[in-house]
Amino acid sequence: MTPPQSLPSLKRVAVCGGTHGNEMSGVYLAKYWLRDPSELQRGTFHTTPFLSNPRAIEQCVRYIERDLNRMFTAEVLNSKKSDADPYEVQRAQEINQVFGPKGSPQAYDFMFDLHNTTANMGSCLIANSEQSLLTMHMCNYIQKHYTASPCPIFLYQLPEQEPYSISSVAKAGLAIELGPQPQGVARADLLTQMRSIMSCALDFIELFNKGTMFPAFESETYKYVGSVDYPRYPDGEISAVVHPSLQDKDFQPLKPGDPIFQTLSGEDIFYEGDDSTYVIFINEAAYYEKKIAFSKMKKCTFSQPALQRKF
Amino acid sequence: MTPPQSLPSLKRVAVCGGTHGNEMSGVYLAKYWLRDPSELQRGTFHTTPFLSNPRAIEQCVRYIERDLNRMFTAEVLNSKKSDADPYEVQRAQEINQVFGPKGSPQAYDFMFDLHNTTANMGSCLIANSEQSLLTMHMCNYIQKHYTASPCPIFLYQLPEQEPYSISSVAKAGLAIELGPQPQGVARADLLTQMRSIMSCALDFIELFNKGTMFPAFESETYKYVGSVDYPRYPDGEISAVVHPSLQDKDFQPLKPGDPIFQTLSGEDIFYEGDDSTYVIFINEAAYYEKKIAFSKMKKCTFSQPALQRKF
Repeated sequence: MTPPQSLPSLKRVAVCGGTHGNEMSGVYLAKYWLRDPSELQRGTFHTTPFLSNPRAIEQCVRYIERDLNRMFTAEVLNSKKSDADPYEVQRAQEINQVFGPKGSPQAYDFMFDLHNTTANMGSCLIANSEQSLLTMHMCNYIQKHYTASPCPIFLYQLPEQEPYSISSVAKAGLAIELGPQPQGVARADLLTQMRSIMSCALDFIELFNKGTMFPAFESETYKYVGSVDYPRYPDGEISAVVHPSLQDKDFQPLKPGDPIFQTLSGEDIFYEGDDSTYVIFINEAAYYEKKIAFSKMKKCTFSQPALQRKF
Repeated sequence: MTPPQSLPSLKRVAVCGGTHGNEMSGVYLAKYWLRDPSELQRGTFHTTPFLSNPRAIEQCVRYIERDLNRMFTAEVLNSKKSDADPYEVQRAQEINQVFGPKGSPQAYDFMFDLHNTTANMGSCLIANSEQSLLTMHMCNYIQKHYTASPCPIFLYQLPEQEPYSISSVAKAGLAIELGPQPQGVARADLLTQMRSIMSCALDFIELFNKGTMFPAFESETYKYVGSVDYPRYPDGEISAVVHPSLQDKDFQPLKPGDPIFQTLSGEDIFYEGDDSTYVIFINEAAYYEKKIAFSKMKKCTFSQPALQRKF
């Protein structure tokens, strides 16, 4: 059994909304916290709210030129500045300057990134991998203390892949992905959910900073495996929609032979994988352009050692 | 009692999708019907499918420069052409040339226009006013024969107002508005609903053309009264979201004193109207920019005379 781990206390925490400018729960919360940040504050650390993509927020679009949440790679962050750079490249470099530099000792200790999806994903917690012990303990704490809905954990990073998301600028991070909510809409129920989860996560940091010992546990997670595109006509146009029996079934198992699409002429198309899988981001509006009808995951359990702050 | 009315048979019918380029049920159906129009055909008339706003569809946005569905006024349609015109002005003039001219004997007999909303409006039938006898009889037929969900009738035109919507180019028209569906998403269930309602409407035209007598009836409709904006800070930013107890309650009554908004600081805001009203387009994504949180309606019943085609 792995011995208890210790990590330094957290001093500087950031929380951003509007990394995608039409995902409104985070946009509304970050704007509100910029007016009144009091509910973010705890005794032992400071939390800074910010808007990730102000121009996209203003236009209520996901992004202006590039998906900002794919820009936080060494290649983009270290590229030579030019006025011809896409807006999101410039913005990623600015964010890296203020909250990073990524991978450096000066980087913020933690970053929360607030998202919505049109998929029926409930209250999903997204981390890059199971190896971020602090984030895994935070997720476990949220799952135990925020009981209004299940909070499944999705790990997006493939083996050998460099983390590219905005929260990777800080030493550790977590994306909170709530759905279903249409782009450009702020629902009161999801706003309340997101606020409660954020509050719970900040409470965790406060307890951690104060020296609470968090015991070892088994984390049940869903790990990204790959994605499935829509069926298409020879000319590239989509020829089928997500099957009504798959729609809204995020985090449920999909078995070989289950229907996944329905063509406009009424034909069912079945899942031909060899094994059962779990599905996520089913019929997400923003992923049509990425050629993703849904993503596949495997369920993984990891043993996480106990955690306490370094004294 | 008004005597039975007679109207000429219908020869040319049009159906368009993508008047708003990110409302996907109509986009997908119109694209499919352009590949295979057979399900639109009946014995006594011809139906032409088309895409209203191809550039907006390509970019998956509501519109490029102007809301196309507000462009069909005499002023816009008769303005002198210029290359500097907004794309939707050009497109409205093209559509008017092919399916109009609006108000002329050459205009198409009927136009269907397929829409989605992020609001929980179910299967809503939208006409300009109760005075279009053919459309009112069609709505009544749909309500009786499409029984999978209620199909309330919304009349959008204010007294003295010129009809401005795309279907006003034809001699009569109907918009079918299905929700809730996020912008940019095509759900199989709504696609099926829209197709069934279209099929039912085409059956009605076929029966009408064949000489069926449609008896007099009372039509229960909802008539547009006005709209309510979101509460705002002095700087114009929205300060409250639609109240959770109002969200998703389209077509339900709203009474004075009912909560309608919730501020981000947790305060409830109540409806201060003098009388009960009915609400629609609650939290529609596309209406944030129009400063509409929801619209108000009055319920009206109209006596409609019997209808038969002119022999």
